[in-house]
Amino acid sequence: MDLYELTMAASYFEHKEDSLASFELFIRKLPTNRSFFLALGIHDVIDFLHEFHFKEEEIDYLKGLKIFSNEFLQFLSTIRFHGNLWAVPEGTVVFSNEPILKVVAPIIEAQIFESIFLNLINLQTMIGTKAARTVLVAKGKSLFDFSLRRTHGLDAALKAARVSYVAGFQGTSNLLAGKLYGIPVVGTMAHSFIMSFNDELKSFRAFVDTFPKYSTLLIDTYDSIQGVENAIIIAHELERKGHSLRAIRIDSGNLARTASRARFLLDKAGLSYVKIFASGNLDEYFIDDLVSQKAPIDSFGVGTKMGVSADAPYCDVIYKLTEITDINGEFLPTMKLSEGKHTYPGRKQIYRTLDKNGTYKKDILGLENEKVEGNALLVKMIDNGVVVYKQPSLKQVRDFVQKNLSRLPKALKQLKNAKRYPVEISPDLKYLTRQVSEKIKDRLEKY
Amino acid sequence: MDLYELTMAASYFEHKEDSLASFELFIRKLPTNRSFFLALGIHDVIDFLHEFHFKEEEIDYLKGLKIFSNEFLQFLSTIRFHGNLWAVPEGTVVFSNEPILKVVAPIIEAQIFESIFLNLINLQTMIGTKAARTVLVAKGKSLFDFSLRRTHGLDAALKAARVSYVAGFQGTSNLLAGKLYGIPVVGTMAHSFIMSFNDELKSFRAFVDTFPKYSTLLIDTYDSIQGVENAIIIAHELERKGHSLRAIRIDSGNLARTASRARFLLDKAGLSYVKIFASGNLDEYFIDDLVSQKAPIDSFGVGTKMGVSADAPYCDVIYKLTEITDINGEFLPTMKLSEGKHTYPGRKQIYRTLDKNGTYKKDILGLENEKVEGNALLVKMIDNGVVVYKQPSLKQVRDFVQKNLSRLPKALKQLKNAKRYPVEISPDLKYLTRQVSEKIKDRLEKY
Repeated sequence: MDLYELTMAASYFEHKEDSLASFELFIRKLPTNRSFFLALGIHDVIDFLHEFHFKEEEIDYLKGLKIFSNEFLQFLSTIRFHGNLWAVPEGTVVFSNEPILKVVAPIIEAQIFESIFLNLINLQTMIGTKAARTVLVAKGKSLFDFSLRRTHGLDAALKAARVSYVAGFQGTSNLLAGKLYGIPVVGTMAHSFIMSFNDELKSFRAFVDTFPKYSTLLIDTYDSIQGVENAIIIAHELERKGHSLRAIRIDSGNLARTASRARFLLDKAGLSYVKIFASGNLDEYFIDDLVSQKAPIDSFGVGTKMGVSADAPYCDVIYKLTEITDINGEFLPTMKLSEGKHTYPGRKQIYRTLDKNGTYKKDILGLENEKVEGNALLVKMIDNGVVVYKQPSLKQVRDFVQKNLSRLPKALKQLKNAKRYPVEISPDLKYLTRQVSEKIKDRLEKY
Repeated sequence: MDLYELTMAASYFEHKEDSLASFELFIRKLPTNRSFFLALGIHDVIDFLHEFHFKEEEIDYLKGLKIFSNEFLQFLSTIRFHGNLWAVPEGTVVFSNEPILKVVAPIIEAQIFESIFLNLINLQTMIGTKAARTVLVAKGKSLFDFSLRRTHGLDAALKAARVSYVAGFQGTSNLLAGKLYGIPVVGTMAHSFIMSFNDELKSFRAFVDTFPKYSTLLIDTYDSIQGVENAIIIAHELERKGHSLRAIRIDSGNLARTASRARFLLDKAGLSYVKIFASGNLDEYFIDDLVSQKAPIDSFGVGTKMGVSADAPYCDVIYKLTEITDINGEFLPTMKLSEGKHTYPGRKQIYRTLDKNGTYKKDILGLENEKVEGNALLVKMIDNGVVVYKQPSLKQVRDFVQKNLSRLPKALKQLKNAKRYPVEISPDLKYLTRQVSEKIKDRLEKY
């Protein structure tokens, strides 16, 4: 939590404890080379709100800051989330300005979670979207998450494994993610394994001796072609023992060229069943290039660039007040007019229309109970503090994401310069925006 | 942990359990616009190794994968780190190819921590370096970490608060970081606080009523100049009650222009003691620009771009085998020859020379016990599994970093196109590299 969330809460506590507020979380602008986002992290938000409370030691720490009254600290020590949460289902495709979640609650309970909501949604949405882009260009080839070593911490590593799986990856190298989420795990050897034997062939032989049914041999420690020749020797030795080599892995150099040469040598040696696995600096751009060139690569290990969303390591995700009750308990819509940062007032809903083939046609951003064509996407998940939404399993979310991606217009699947998906503002929302903005400007001019 | 670390370990367990190995962790290449790195995360590595063991449920999970033998799983259930760890002290300035840490241990104990070491060092080194670059251009103005909402998870948020403080920031908005690390915390209000009152002046009045000695008023929710005028009214009201307004905050628009106008209005109103705080999309480039323009801003809140190291969200940090014992227990140096990814063999040390003003002059990358001019930077921190290094406090690390930064040559402090710091390869290391590389190439040609 950021300190300012509690200083604001302290002032609300003294001046407007009874107010109800509505906040919405959305991405203001899509970054370069992003034509959509997969909304992810919503299950974490539900779990967080369900379990939220301050521990005694946390209240003691706040007390030690000597800026809060005892009454307020007493209030914090018993606070729970009693409000309502609406959100799009985990894995929904969303666009700029569309609320991913909406909170209506006593103002303190709505305000203090701003940073945690943004953090939870931002990380998974950003990395999951990058993974989905990779899935879209891989054209059915298998993808695996290899990002643990370079993600921003261990929390991010787990989430990268989770959301890449949800986006359509086949598995991860991350054992803890495998254990926690039940995701398939993969991995065989590093260059250091081979170097430790000071002899590539000996190292390969030792490895397949331990894993006769489960070996991918890394062939580029010294010389890739020599590495393939050694792998072929091993594959034939395995055949004589009734086993078969699973794959070779290439991790450096010109991947397409080495893969072609390796495929040729393997096929010539009667080893067309041995797969080729590639890794090293891969992302959706590189994989698109390799797939378009028809490089004979069967699977890709995707690491750092996906795991940190390297070309867009953050998004402009924000959490803004849209309505607040007045002293009579009536909701009044509100908005921000800051230069280049204005927002839309009112409690909103996303209405999505499909064309006759089931492809997304357009969205309308409207008000909560407005009569607008299309399917409403925001679903009530917490009602007066009680979780009323049954979280689908990881597998179900994965299927839901695949359905969402299959409905994306083709033009939006382009990696660069994709067309912008049409998100219209409904008549009522347009009217309300004009009205609220004029009211605020009038008030400013009165000074 | 990545699965391949345990598959390699399983094969070592069967084929070369007695071998000792030396691994080194270093950054292969500095990213664009990085002329140095602050090595950070070392204390986490020490703590991790000290506490490392597999839990029973983890062994059960591994058993469920059905690829490991019972003997190996039994071995894993009792494994601890018994080796030696050398590292540069937390906060040391390092350059490409210089080992940040070095492990000499039974090969399994050295190999299985690759991913966790890389993850721990990468995150803090990268973000701390970005924060240090910001400190270098801020010319003594105060900086505060505001990154919680957009860091890659909550783990990264804590680390961003920690390393930015170590790099010279004054504090953070992150309460948990304040609690865990004893870092000063700051923060006042968001736009939503002001919007919730539907009247800026009323919202300011409510806030200073709660925090008469501790208020920074955010002035750009509707119109920045009007916001400053309102803050002036409040400041005068506070004066009449014997208090004083601390600061105003600007978060959008043209920061330099708004700050100048605000400074003028505040001074004209006799409020030259009221500080100006700026935030919004700040990073070292933007702050350098504002400071060079002499924008009258006293403090900066630095968020997203520092917290995700936006222009370099990862670095080419790797962990490589450099020596391995043969069957006689003799250490044999080794290296990787992969295209564009070759490494230096042997157990190394960094030797740093200062000029007569105490500025870094050059480094020599040499062998562990080589006679080379300069101070040796790698220190033994764990000896046969026992921690022998007393971790300095966060405050001491912060002072150490300031000393390190003050010794940086001026040319390296440039944000872009900085000169490259000279890191020479020692005569013995050159000789060894040639020797090992030729030996490997000879062996390859024999096939």
